Amino acid sequence: MIEQVLQLLKERKYAEVKAAALKMHYADIAEVFERLDAEDKESALLFFRLLPKEVAAETFAYMEPEIQEHIIGAITDQELRYILDDMYLDDYVDLIEEMPANVVKRVLRNSSGENRKLINQYLQYPEDSAGSIMTNEYVYFKQTLTVGQALDEIRKTGIDKETINNCYVIDNQHHLDGVVGLRELILAAPETVVGTIMRTHIICANTYDDQEQVAQLFSKYDMLSMPVVDNENRLVGIITIDDVMDVLQEETTEDMEKMAAITPSDKPYLRTGVWELWRSRIPWLLLLMVSATFTSMILMRFEQALSTALVAFIPMLMDTGGNSGSQTSVTIIRGLSLGDIEFRDLFRVLWKEVRVAVLCGVTLAICNFAKLMLFDRVGVMVSLVVCSTLVCTVLFAKVVGGALPMLAKRIGFDPAVMASPFITTIVDAASLLIYVKISLSVM
Amino acid sequence: MIEQVLQLLKERKYAEVKAAALKMHYADIAEVFERLDAEDKESALLFFRLLPKEVAAETFAYMEPEIQEHIIGAITDQELRYILDDMYLDDYVDLIEEMPANVVKRVLRNSSGENRKLINQYLQYPEDSAGSIMTNEYVYFKQTLTVGQALDEIRKTGIDKETINNCYVIDNQHHLDGVVGLRELILAAPETVVGTIMRTHIICANTYDDQEQVAQLFSKYDMLSMPVVDNENRLVGIITIDDVMDVLQEETTEDMEKMAAITPSDKPYLRTGVWELWRSRIPWLLLLMVSATFTSMILMRFEQALSTALVAFIPMLMDTGGNSGSQTSVTIIRGLSLGDIEFRDLFRVLWKEVRVAVLCGVTLAICNFAKLMLFDRVGVMVSLVVCSTLVCTVLFAKVVGGALPMLAKRIGFDPAVMASPFITTIVDAASLLIYVKISLSVM
Repeated sequence: MIEQVLQLLKERKYAEVKAAALKMHYADIAEVFERLDAEDKESALLFFRLLPKEVAAETFAYMEPEIQEHIIGAITDQELRYILDDMYLDDYVDLIEEMPANVVKRVLRNSSGENRKLINQYLQYPEDSAGSIMTNEYVYFKQTLTVGQALDEIRKTGIDKETINNCYVIDNQHHLDGVVGLRELILAAPETVVGTIMRTHIICANTYDDQEQVAQLFSKYDMLSMPVVDNENRLVGIITIDDVMDVLQEETTEDMEKMAAITPSDKPYLRTGVWELWRSRIPWLLLLMVSATFTSMILMRFEQALSTALVAFIPMLMDTGGNSGSQTSVTIIRGLSLGDIEFRDLFRVLWKEVRVAVLCGVTLAICNFAKLMLFDRVGVMVSLVVCSTLVCTVLFAKVVGGALPMLAKRIGFDPAVMASPFITTIVDAASLLIYVKISLSVM
Repeated sequence: MIEQVLQLLKERKYAEVKAAALKMHYADIAEVFERLDAEDKESALLFFRLLPKEVAAETFAYMEPEIQEHIIGAITDQELRYILDDMYLDDYVDLIEEMPANVVKRVLRNSSGENRKLINQYLQYPEDSAGSIMTNEYVYFKQTLTVGQALDEIRKTGIDKETINNCYVIDNQHHLDGVVGLRELILAAPETVVGTIMRTHIICANTYDDQEQVAQLFSKYDMLSMPVVDNENRLVGIITIDDVMDVLQEETTEDMEKMAAITPSDKPYLRTGVWELWRSRIPWLLLLMVSATFTSMILMRFEQALSTALVAFIPMLMDTGGNSGSQTSVTIIRGLSLGDIEFRDLFRVLWKEVRVAVLCGVTLAICNFAKLMLFDRVGVMVSLVVCSTLVCTVLFAKVVGGALPMLAKRIGFDPAVMASPFITTIVDAASLLIYVKISLSVM
């Protein structure tokens, strides 16, 4: 479908382009813009103007910030006003957060007075807070209404709301009293009073709650939308599940980046510049390189203790230690972020890891001993030194890999930073020390 | 709240326990069972029997499989039938997939004939397919109905459906004609014909589609539920967003496990036995240990070429290479799984990585050169050999880290396997070879 529209645009069959676009989902139309924008910005603008105004406005919210910026730069103030009037508040706030200052100025100049006020208020919530992803397009009414009146209210105001699956029941001070699903309203008799069928045990978020915690609540309670209240329990907005799915994806990407020793960024890779990539990667590489100084110092200090035969197995020992440690740390970090593991499980985790480490270490040592004797033919003493170091290294790596993320979380650090690169650096130095000690004591 | 119920149960204040439970979300009640089950299985059963039957049945679907098994083992056939009658089909299928054979037998014996037939049919879809996570509890009607009639139909049948937010319009052969949201029905006049307001450009899944792809569609198109059709375009079920969120979480966990060289499992860590953990970890550790043979062989072969001063920096070079490579591979793997990067971007990715690698390599080399000269005082020649190896290693690591996941995906392998441990092993051997070559040529 996307290919087809691109082809039609090339052939200048504009009527057919328009007809095809009307059958497409906004997300797919936005993808056409992405493809066009890379090659030919003129056609992108032309395509934008071919779309009916409502479609253009809806599609706009699905576009990448770069493309939004290009389009805002090319359209008239009047066209811009039309798009802005049609956007949901959460997309609006996103837009303003992403655009450079001169574009923001133009956007705000073309916003209605009421929108400008709301946006300024929403922009005050910290990034990553529940307030920063909520929207004010929700349906609300008083609990004294009957179901019939409530449905009339929904018919009257619902068309502009982001979701009407859940409606919110408030009192005169806008305090949140209850929630009632459209489902309950439809299934109830029209003369029923809303107050009698609403749920009053409400799972809701505070504006300053962390968005990742909010996402975990959605997942735990199978919710489609969640009310957000301020410190006085006044309803100020709702969060919908489509934004929560984005949050989950972003947070997971951030965790993975941290685990790979990268400073997280929310820009897609292909749109991130070379200098930016360098900036997000170099501090960690430098830090880890400098930490590896310890291994060099150990090796220099004990050069006599290690015969050349032993030196040959240093990389194998270090890699195996690093891999064992990162298996454990990644498992624990993921468990912590899903809420499967908590700090009070520390000793259960360590006891489990000790047993797994002994099993893994012994298995590896037996296989390696056979290989050293039969294939490398390095003699019994060298084989014994290598294999006992292997067992100790795996044990050390798995205990450190299990303990560090949990301790990090306990003292308020992000456990994801305690992943492979960090643990590898510690395990490297430790495994070398173990290797030297063992070989000194037996040789 | 959970603590409070546990306390009340200890104090045997059963009336208060019941009152408290009625105010709680099913997911929280299920958590009470989890806590009870670990300490005191008797109380868990008692608590289960204290709950009103409908609450007990709903809570059951939120429990961990182990606890479901304990409870099924302790209750009567009549109690079991009550729970089973009340479960949604997708939870039912999950239950049967998780339980051991003897429990499955008892569950099937207590299922109604119709349910048994449906379950057998659903169990035939492969694990991880769209068919395996769909449910048959959806609302459907013909397109000739008016909106008023459709709403009556929803009122009559909707109470048992998992979602009524989207209703499905089918023809006489159960082919999917269109979708209409409850929102559109509510906002339309009662005499409107459904066929005129339904959407006919439907995003739907085939029963055999991969569940991860389905999840990506939900995320792309901001959907709440998706129809599933068979090869003849007949509607056979729907997938709801709560199951999709679970799929996303599970798939991400699997990706992370693969990246850390662990065979994925869908069991939470704390409930996985020591032998099971050993089985999921040891094959990869063995494989990677054996691959490290190459580094040992290189070191043994070229022992004369490397002075002790040079040997001391081998771990630092290897770690830096491994870290550089895993930064790139993790970024690319995540980009591939989110759909941000595709195979056709291969050369863009490599060109970007080459430039970032040169920047990172040169920065690291300059800092390291200063450290080697001022702190380690190893002389100009050694410093130059180490630093030029550093630049080459980082370049090699980043190119391999970028190319391997993309090539893996191209030939149908899982890119996640091409992460840190695998790349580290390759980069280790390569960096050693580079080190030896450079030192041989200048010293």
